[in-house]
Amino acid sequence: MISSSKNLCKEDRFRRSALTESNLFQSTAAALEWLEERGSVNQLVVDHIPFEEMREWSFEPETGDIVHRTGKFFRVHGLRVSADSGSLREWDQPIIDQPEIGILGIVAREFDGQLLFLMQAKLEPGNPAGVQLTPTVQATRSNYTQVHQGARPKYLDYFLNREKSTVLVDQLQFEQGSTFLRKRNRNIIVEVDADVPVEEDFRWFTLGQIKQLLSVPNLVSMDARTVVSCIPFRERTWQRPTNGVSRNGDGEHEGELGSFGGRLLASLGDGGRSLHSDDAIQSWLTELKCRYQLSVKRVGLRELQAWGHREHRIGHEAGRYFHVMGVRVKARNREVLNWDQPLVQPTEKGLIAFFVKEIDGVLHFLAQGKVEPGNPDVVAVGPSVHCVLSQESLSDPGSWSPFTEVALEAPPEAIRYSCIQSEEGGRFYHAENEYRVVELDPSEGERLPDGYVWVTLRQLTELLRHGLLNVEARSLLACLSLI
Amino acid sequence: MISSSKNLCKEDRFRRSALTESNLFQSTAAALEWLEERGSVNQLVVDHIPFEEMREWSFEPETGDIVHRTGKFFRVHGLRVSADSGSLREWDQPIIDQPEIGILGIVAREFDGQLLFLMQAKLEPGNPAGVQLTPTVQATRSNYTQVHQGARPKYLDYFLNREKSTVLVDQLQFEQGSTFLRKRNRNIIVEVDADVPVEEDFRWFTLGQIKQLLSVPNLVSMDARTVVSCIPFRERTWQRPTNGVSRNGDGEHEGELGSFGGRLLASLGDGGRSLHSDDAIQSWLTELKCRYQLSVKRVGLRELQAWGHREHRIGHEAGRYFHVMGVRVKARNREVLNWDQPLVQPTEKGLIAFFVKEIDGVLHFLAQGKVEPGNPDVVAVGPSVHCVLSQESLSDPGSWSPFTEVALEAPPEAIRYSCIQSEEGGRFYHAENEYRVVELDPSEGERLPDGYVWVTLRQLTELLRHGLLNVEARSLLACLSLI
Repeated sequence: MISSSKNLCKEDRFRRSALTESNLFQSTAAALEWLEERGSVNQLVVDHIPFEEMREWSFEPETGDIVHRTGKFFRVHGLRVSADSGSLREWDQPIIDQPEIGILGIVAREFDGQLLFLMQAKLEPGNPAGVQLTPTVQATRSNYTQVHQGARPKYLDYFLNREKSTVLVDQLQFEQGSTFLRKRNRNIIVEVDADVPVEEDFRWFTLGQIKQLLSVPNLVSMDARTVVSCIPFRERTWQRPTNGVSRNGDGEHEGELGSFGGRLLASLGDGGRSLHSDDAIQSWLTELKCRYQLSVKRVGLRELQAWGHREHRIGHEAGRYFHVMGVRVKARNREVLNWDQPLVQPTEKGLIAFFVKEIDGVLHFLAQGKVEPGNPDVVAVGPSVHCVLSQESLSDPGSWSPFTEVALEAPPEAIRYSCIQSEEGGRFYHAENEYRVVELDPSEGERLPDGYVWVTLRQLTELLRHGLLNVEARSLLACLSLI
Repeated sequence: MISSSKNLCKEDRFRRSALTESNLFQSTAAALEWLEERGSVNQLVVDHIPFEEMREWSFEPETGDIVHRTGKFFRVHGLRVSADSGSLREWDQPIIDQPEIGILGIVAREFDGQLLFLMQAKLEPGNPAGVQLTPTVQATRSNYTQVHQGARPKYLDYFLNREKSTVLVDQLQFEQGSTFLRKRNRNIIVEVDADVPVEEDFRWFTLGQIKQLLSVPNLVSMDARTVVSCIPFRERTWQRPTNGVSRNGDGEHEGELGSFGGRLLASLGDGGRSLHSDDAIQSWLTELKCRYQLSVKRVGLRELQAWGHREHRIGHEAGRYFHVMGVRVKARNREVLNWDQPLVQPTEKGLIAFFVKEIDGVLHFLAQGKVEPGNPDVVAVGPSVHCVLSQESLSDPGSWSPFTEVALEAPPEAIRYSCIQSEEGGRFYHAENEYRVVELDPSEGERLPDGYVWVTLRQLTELLRHGLLNVEARSLLACLSLI
């Protein structure tokens, strides 16, 4: 029996849970087996169908937009975008407009001095490989106000009723700005003191176990990653350096000072040794926001230029970017057992990478100002590299985005993380990205193109906390293990 | 000759300038005389004219919107707003749509160890009392990209060309969310090392002098107030308490530990003694944003319900809120010498007040979550009280907003600041508000209505820094003298 951790600050309690896979309910291996077992029970049949056959969804006569019968959930309409700089000055594109703020919530509870997180094994129609580990609750507002007449999501009351829980994390975060307009979710973690019933498809995990499962391809959902990314840590005070991974009396890994996780934790206390001040980072972002003033005009889906219907998909005429399609989904284990919905399918797999480098003894991350029409404020902060990996572009290095080569051809000893992860399967169909963290040699200076800046993990965390980091950057930060 | 302050951090340099009115170029009294003199030289004739007679502006045929010939500057269109809570569930209103980010910039330079700020004596057509003290530069993007063929604003290069200056403050801030859609300005202060020519209508000021002039009604413009509000300070380390205001060797007021300004400075270092943690404040705001989901739909100006044309104004049929009118302006001393433009005239004077109270020995401010359709994120953080002071509402206390009575009937000894200030005269016509800060008795507990929270000055400053404080709250914070 380990003493309660409630005398610690929340950052230290999160860290303690991040540093251990020791869980009285299940080992990580048992959790993997359980996920596999849930995957064999929960299965979805997903059929691509013509838009005209979709139930509950239709083309709005005046605009050609794809809308739900109730006007709720989301709408696929068109955008006409003009940029006053950049190579592509004007373009049209479909966008998923989802103005309602949903909830991505995780219930936490302390067991034997350790904070555990209640995660769900859940299947979404667009998942590339079956069941994924998701937050306790994912609910759109329409969802929990019962627009689709399904069952009310389980555990929702812990998030809506403040008497039942204590808030540990509570932030609004936005999602893909290239395909979503205004889609934001409340990323929330609440701690419950009372007994929490553990329903079928739910299990308790340490944060260390979730981090461990993030090294398995496509297993931890984007929704889980974004909530996990919001968890605050703080610098660890290293009292006695160890040479290897050991456990102390609390069952907590001590970690290794020289390990990447240990160096990440240490770099949270940059102690004024960041390359740029926080004010300078703010000014960098302000400057980008002033420079890139997109004009974004809403147009009907049928007015889009260079986009059209083909084989029951709405796609770009050059076959690029993504297309929108209708699917029919049959499931056994969901609020609604059988439904149709639109999904977005990217035409190519992507690469999402952060470069890290020690500068003045502190790990820095290379951040990029990304302009995307659906971002809440046009420019958001993204990872060092975010590009598509088509055969076409791979065979022509001249077409690569800045740093693509560095990320793709990094030697194995420089790769701190590498795994395929998928994007939200409730909106995206088989959308996969390779997520990578590559450490650069501190002695190598690189000229940064316009719009890039080196920031410390503390600064990145501050940007995240204020909703300025895009979902790709958040996702990748969530993947970083502290062990 | 006083030694350079460049070895100090920027917050301390700002504080030094805020604590003195001692300025080698001019005393505060001389500055007042100069402003009066500029006011007698720079005069505007502003005539209310029918919209149809406005040059360069017209009603767009399809919508009835008021638009500029070039499509630039701003547009007056309509909004149809539905709220899912609150007393007024649905309303229509005109709004000024100004998507371009402008610049509000102040040039700073060090003279004899003291940071001085180059301010302009400037006249806007809507000013209630002539010339005001404004930032060095106020420029819309159309303005400095020369849409109106006027002269390029003076000093602009210091802000656009980073080789000429060092950035001290650089933040995007939004303006009135009740009348502006998306209007944001880059609030920026740059320091210049080289000689700066001082043109007619420009003078150097210490921050202490600007603060002093903020006790004169309608003299310091809203644009100046919002830039000044972004200036960061930090807790002062009080080395030797003094009994009165004295000057140390640097010509800096020591201030008085017990003075309100001294207590403000001291409360910047709340040292964990804030009533709520920063995370709790973030959660409070997240909760409000999720609860108040406004649906804001753009409609043509002529489609507005309960609004109509009367006496060459577009106003509300009950004579409430504000009206839009056209004016013809003739000036001697501006980029464009003679022009027409729409202006917004509020129908009533307003009251804007912060309550402050010592809680656990630290000054706290009562903040309010304000829902306004033009806010960047629907809910912004505003002062404790923001209401109109019509005869009608004054005679009926039952109709007062929460806390109106406390603000209006505060005893003189509890009033820490009280002055009439006007809103931006380039968009508003004679828009005046009474700004007040009232200190409450720490022993009095008051029940807070939903949507209010006590925060420390450090927390308020953090919210401001991230663009979450509305212009009324920023304006009032700017008025607080530290002496």
